[in-house]
Amino acid sequence: MIEAIQAGRAIDKILFQRNTSGESIGEIRKLAKEHHIPIQQVPPEKLFSITRANHQGVIAFAALVNYLDLQQVVDHVVASGQLPLFVMLDGITDVRNIGAIARTALCCGAQAIIVPDKGVGAMNEEAMKSSAGALEKINICRVGSLLKAVDELHLNGIKVFTSVMNAEKKVFDIDFAEPSCIIMGSEDHGVQPYLSKAADAHFTIPMKNNFDSLNVSVAAGIVLYEAMKKRL
Amino acid sequence: MIEAIQAGRAIDKILFQRNTSGESIGEIRKLAKEHHIPIQQVPPEKLFSITRANHQGVIAFAALVNYLDLQQVVDHVVASGQLPLFVMLDGITDVRNIGAIARTALCCGAQAIIVPDKGVGAMNEEAMKSSAGALEKINICRVGSLLKAVDELHLNGIKVFTSVMNAEKKVFDIDFAEPSCIIMGSEDHGVQPYLSKAADAHFTIPMKNNFDSLNVSVAAGIVLYEAMKKRL
Repeated sequence: MIEAIQAGRAIDKILFQRNTSGESIGEIRKLAKEHHIPIQQVPPEKLFSITRANHQGVIAFAALVNYLDLQQVVDHVVASGQLPLFVMLDGITDVRNIGAIARTALCCGAQAIIVPDKGVGAMNEEAMKSSAGALEKINICRVGSLLKAVDELHLNGIKVFTSVMNAEKKVFDIDFAEPSCIIMGSEDHGVQPYLSKAADAHFTIPMKNNFDSLNVSVAAGIVLYEAMKKRL
Repeated sequence: MIEAIQAGRAIDKILFQRNTSGESIGEIRKLAKEHHIPIQQVPPEKLFSITRANHQGVIAFAALVNYLDLQQVVDHVVASGQLPLFVMLDGITDVRNIGAIARTALCCGAQAIIVPDKGVGAMNEEAMKSSAGALEKINICRVGSLLKAVDELHLNGIKVFTSVMNAEKKVFDIDFAEPSCIIMGSEDHGVQPYLSKAADAHFTIPMKNNFDSLNVSVAAGIVLYEAMKKRL
């Protein structure tokens, strides 16, 4: 497992048996932290329910997507002459929505999706299926802190936009022709306040009928479509 | 049951036991046809698996939405000074997509959704949940023939628009400020050719990355958003 992590093999999460220790366990913990791999402490029964093999107190789940380093993706996009368009997912747990957003992102010319290492739906088979293959084609960056990722985007000259209720600007007033990252929050809670505060500009999607309730993948579709249009 | 149908009580479908006949059965069949209620012939075991009550060879399923007459809805919308914006669903079977489209339709100011009596996902509890209540707020018209419904829309001066691959116009070139109905087809098969042919104009949603695969509720979101924008 140590070799796999060091070789950059994509791993979704690592389960440790509670109260297990040892040199290699410590090494794996350290590597997991470095590579932003979520870890969980679980009772021994949990590990036995997953495998009868000799797991030595630790099981890693291989990811179905390859997680990439944000700075490397930015460098690659800029070096290939593209105008960065990224999507950051904050608290989106429904894997079907994640799949649909990945499809839309690819259709609208986005190059990468940024996800946190915790509190996001798994890149599992249902997400893959819902994405119609898009999750295998788009770059996915997993980061330890979305706020630090926003800082990193800013250092690279990428503007960060997100929606808030009652923003003065409408989505079509945003200058998406600039290098842009769009943060999408959950339907229930929206984008977390500390993250929203770090954005360069806020917008609303106009609504009728006092029915302010778009599905998050539909809302992402409208915003990404506007971004694509501004770049045509 | 005859009274319920005559009183306009919304019914999703009626199951008849195979080879059952009689005066009231004949009457129910006739009423079902008049009210565009789908009927199915099933073996006796099927009816017994649904209820142990004395069903007399026929069981009706109450709908969770109220189906309305298309012409009455058109009249009501026009009389109340609104500009008609309708959505027609052709072959959309996934109830979560139907729910998401209903939410978007309501958010974007559409007044009605037109569905066929066959080949559409049920207006069941999952659809209701996915719609976040929108399916209870928007008018839903169930029709025996989508093509006849297009004729009826035309007679009322409502233009019908749909997407096709390689259309010359982009979605933002369509004049949605006119009274409009948008036909959404299934992801796999698109809008049926005979129906697409009856449309007044066709459009594409521009795509990048040669990845021509938006989720249908996302595509509906983009089109309805454009329609709303043209009416702001």
